[in-house]
Amino acid sequence: MKIGFIGSGNVGKTLGSSLVKQGHEVKLGARNQEKLSEWLESFNQNEKASVGSFQEAAEHGEIIFNATPGSVSLEALHAVSHQALKGKILIDVALPLEFSNGELSLSVANIDSLGEQIQRAFPDVKVVKTLNTVTSALMVNPYSLADGEHDLFISGNDEDAKNEVIGFLKEWFGWKNVINLGDISSARGTEMLLALSSRVYGAVGHPNFNFKIVR
Amino acid sequence: MKIGFIGSGNVGKTLGSSLVKQGHEVKLGARNQEKLSEWLESFNQNEKASVGSFQEAAEHGEIIFNATPGSVSLEALHAVSHQALKGKILIDVALPLEFSNGELSLSVANIDSLGEQIQRAFPDVKVVKTLNTVTSALMVNPYSLADGEHDLFISGNDEDAKNEVIGFLKEWFGWKNVINLGDISSARGTEMLLALSSRVYGAVGHPNFNFKIVR
Repeated sequence: MKIGFIGSGNVGKTLGSSLVKQGHEVKLGARNQEKLSEWLESFNQNEKASVGSFQEAAEHGEIIFNATPGSVSLEALHAVSHQALKGKILIDVALPLEFSNGELSLSVANIDSLGEQIQRAFPDVKVVKTLNTVTSALMVNPYSLADGEHDLFISGNDEDAKNEVIGFLKEWFGWKNVINLGDISSARGTEMLLALSSRVYGAVGHPNFNFKIVR
Repeated sequence: MKIGFIGSGNVGKTLGSSLVKQGHEVKLGARNQEKLSEWLESFNQNEKASVGSFQEAAEHGEIIFNATPGSVSLEALHAVSHQALKGKILIDVALPLEFSNGELSLSVANIDSLGEQIQRAFPDVKVVKTLNTVTSALMVNPYSLADGEHDLFISGNDEDAKNEVIGFLKEWFGWKNVINLGDISSARGTEMLLALSSRVYGAVGHPNFNFKIVR
């Protein structure tokens, strides 16, 4: 499958590498493509991996990931033509982080979310929020923790798109338990979880943890 | 132990009943004490259970629970004299819920929390935020779910007070796993969890669930 990434930081590269290794045609979209030469070289001229502009990555992808920092996600997506996004699934993994006064907070919370902001700005894109509650290492390898017995959440207005993404999460990375929270406004819950997980990180002492709903 | 409750809704009554049955002297503080006649009668003139004003409940308690709705917590606590609260542990279980436009949200979030607001307003009270992430039924009976193998969180500025409360949570209700998140500002994380747990409730279909940190 052809998969495009808007954003090529740690999360984009980790997801992209996993997908290239599985035989998908991955294009990482970046403002500064030179920064990705090392990533490209790691694939030893495997033609499945490529880099390009945000526009080229969006045009390439049958499925698109938003892997930009949440603070610049809307700006990055607005740099792409309407035609390149229209009708496609956009898997939004971004965190709306803000550091001000040396303190971590969210740039949007409580009565709105980044997922909703993106969905409102691009009404004919199928925004699916997921993977945003775990580290990039865990995103692509849930089995590395407790045989994958922990939970991922998914939010989005389009049930078919969510079901398709739930299938991808299982097929690509092995996610067994994906809880459908409802429409895109439920992205508030997973984005706001950051306020808890940043403190759990401090208590646990490492980032390789995840939440499980015991029921 | 003498335990006072500011607030006597479902949460206060459930916690209070459990503590009376364990032999503690519990006074539920309410604006309208007549509403508690049924609760009192359920104890068949057991003298361990009593009701009173907020002031009387606070004076009574060696430990005090804030079990008011978060929207009125500060007002309720300000109705109590400084002397009745000073130096005591205040276990804050309140949720800062707000319903506006028919939508659930938090009255404080992201860069502040109810726990912090209370601690700032009452600097010589030892505010400990806990139990606010589970239903009242689960608060007093964690073993009813998966033999208690799920997690509770605790926040507060005073380490000794938190350790004392962790001991109470185990002794009173059987909580095995209580994660110390840090100072009272970490109450943001557990209060903001409500945005996720309200959606998990919808997905799971019942409120008898809890979070577990898989690590």
